[in-house]
Amino acid sequence: MSVLDTIDQPVLLLNEGIARANLERMAAKIAVAGARFRPHFKTHQSIQIGEWFREYGVQAITVSSVEMAEYFADAGWQDILIAFSVNIRQIARIEALAKRVRLSVLVENEAQVSALADLGKAHMDVWIKVDVGNHRTGLDWMELGAIMHLCRSIRRNPQLSLRGLLTHSGHTYHSDGVAGIQQIFREGVERLTSLRSALLEQGLTGLEISVGDTPGCSLCDDLSGIDELRPGNFIFYDAQQAAIGSCSTDQIAVAVACPVVALHPERGEVVVYGGAIHLSKDTLEVDGKISYGLAALADGNGWGKPLPNCILRSLSQEHGVLQFTDGRIPRIQVGNLVMILPAHSCLTVQVMRRYLTLEGRVIETMNH
Amino acid sequence: MSVLDTIDQPVLLLNEGIARANLERMAAKIAVAGARFRPHFKTHQSIQIGEWFREYGVQAITVSSVEMAEYFADAGWQDILIAFSVNIRQIARIEALAKRVRLSVLVENEAQVSALADLGKAHMDVWIKVDVGNHRTGLDWMELGAIMHLCRSIRRNPQLSLRGLLTHSGHTYHSDGVAGIQQIFREGVERLTSLRSALLEQGLTGLEISVGDTPGCSLCDDLSGIDELRPGNFIFYDAQQAAIGSCSTDQIAVAVACPVVALHPERGEVVVYGGAIHLSKDTLEVDGKISYGLAALADGNGWGKPLPNCILRSLSQEHGVLQFTDGRIPRIQVGNLVMILPAHSCLTVQVMRRYLTLEGRVIETMNH
Repeated sequence: MSVLDTIDQPVLLLNEGIARANLERMAAKIAVAGARFRPHFKTHQSIQIGEWFREYGVQAITVSSVEMAEYFADAGWQDILIAFSVNIRQIARIEALAKRVRLSVLVENEAQVSALADLGKAHMDVWIKVDVGNHRTGLDWMELGAIMHLCRSIRRNPQLSLRGLLTHSGHTYHSDGVAGIQQIFREGVERLTSLRSALLEQGLTGLEISVGDTPGCSLCDDLSGIDELRPGNFIFYDAQQAAIGSCSTDQIAVAVACPVVALHPERGEVVVYGGAIHLSKDTLEVDGKISYGLAALADGNGWGKPLPNCILRSLSQEHGVLQFTDGRIPRIQVGNLVMILPAHSCLTVQVMRRYLTLEGRVIETMNH
Repeated sequence: MSVLDTIDQPVLLLNEGIARANLERMAAKIAVAGARFRPHFKTHQSIQIGEWFREYGVQAITVSSVEMAEYFADAGWQDILIAFSVNIRQIARIEALAKRVRLSVLVENEAQVSALADLGKAHMDVWIKVDVGNHRTGLDWMELGAIMHLCRSIRRNPQLSLRGLLTHSGHTYHSDGVAGIQQIFREGVERLTSLRSALLEQGLTGLEISVGDTPGCSLCDDLSGIDELRPGNFIFYDAQQAAIGSCSTDQIAVAVACPVVALHPERGEVVVYGGAIHLSKDTLEVDGKISYGLAALADGNGWGKPLPNCILRSLSQEHGVLQFTDGRIPRIQVGNLVMILPAHSCLTVQVMRRYLTLEGRVIETMNH
């Protein structure tokens, strides 16, 4: 019996072979570059999947919240970077973590440094969160004065080790194709490098450079000048990453199996049990149209290639509506499964909260 | 000490007084109309909040999945409608439920009726899912032949009681203002009524009419001709509902408390800890711009009026970026809380999975 026969409601399928191949490729590339691989675990959010990384020598990890740091610390990870600007309301939990593991945190303002300074003896590595063009948060790379000032504030506290300059070039996600991604990624590295040189002239020595978006890490062969890389999404990739060229659709390791509940041939549509609570509401563009993912048919224990001329045109809480833009529905029946390759795998994992491997094994995340 | 002082990470706040007032208003309105109130529990997803409805005589409920039906059946609800077109892969669980409670299901095709017919003795109420213009799913209200045929298929099975015609006029959500919502809502009722008359002429007697979108139920005073109403979102409302006129912003009963982590005065922006995993990625339009919710400042134990000239312009996994469109940030400091009134409360509840009332009480949902 196929594992697919056991599915009666939306399930997040994981092709472990694809995920491990994605991991192996990224680990090898970063090893060749001689940089430290500190993968972001916010994508998979799973102790069990985290263990796969140890096989590639990974000892340092990135997480996106204090809660996630606590979860992975409980699983024995000893070197954890919380890649989220310090939330001073969580300072007590940050202190408790710093006593258990080698903890790295991000700062971008004096309020955060003051809160850390008040902690007294808990040792922490501190990175300056630098904005190299994404404009989400961080100190602008050109604000040398403010950055210098913040570095000096940190260094006044012996229990805080100023580790370096960190950025997330999230604007690669909105780039036009491979050349654009490569250009943004290298530009970010160069901006950090020039900032580091300027800080060195001011006597601020020993700063490292940490970068980490999946598009850049996937597509740039030149990783020179980088001390640490923190990609996360690459373990599964997704339809957005395929759309911008970070991966092929064959490299997408997760899909949500969705039962078909109705066909509407008169408008070329198929209604599946699979909505916003299963996929999240992130989107991508397919042939100029907004889609909540890519659809594929079941194939053996897994899924085949994404169907052409097909968009997931709407998602409500539990329903998804697939539209075949040429009006022709392929061989799909009520009760079949359609596999949706998610627009954004991180958010899909977050809402689904557990995986089913194609071999029928359940893997939990921190949210289950 | 205010309950807000205990918050160190994004928390879903619930103003119980507002929610109970919303409930009381809707229950009274439906009672006056003499219709059956079968509220949709997919919004709150909580046994504890479900108990509030019993105080208004509610005995019959609506849910959006088999899983949710099981959860509320375990809590003693005995009359449950699964308002989702039957997923035949879950037929065994549907049968088990039908043996425990008075179960109502939705069908729109022969494959579903066949699967139900195969169950043998488990009794069920069956509704025809009718599309009166929303075009998500259901049989088009003008397809009299197909609908008649399906009704007869159901009536051939003595254990299946054909109960009536059901629709969800979800297109009210995309309507232009109050008059538009009222018009769509009444049009839907009239389409079902004329369909019922046509079926009656064919000897199909005793069919009820069930409708249930929150905008229509909130804004239409004329509920004549309706046997059953199934609104859900009204218990909390949200920023989308306020934007289309279903409620005032004072009637929104939930908000996500988000710690401020950084200010960027040069671009009029405030970065909060509160992202897609806390709010979901649903949006509304504010002054012609896309926003992921409305922002308010803390006020006493709760929140004040939504801030003017403010959009939640972007959400990533954990970050939200508030933009003050006039460039002026009000009195907000790093470490303060900003309250985000969600674009779509159903999805926010689904990702947050528990509430904190303004009195400091934790209320769980089925997902915790």
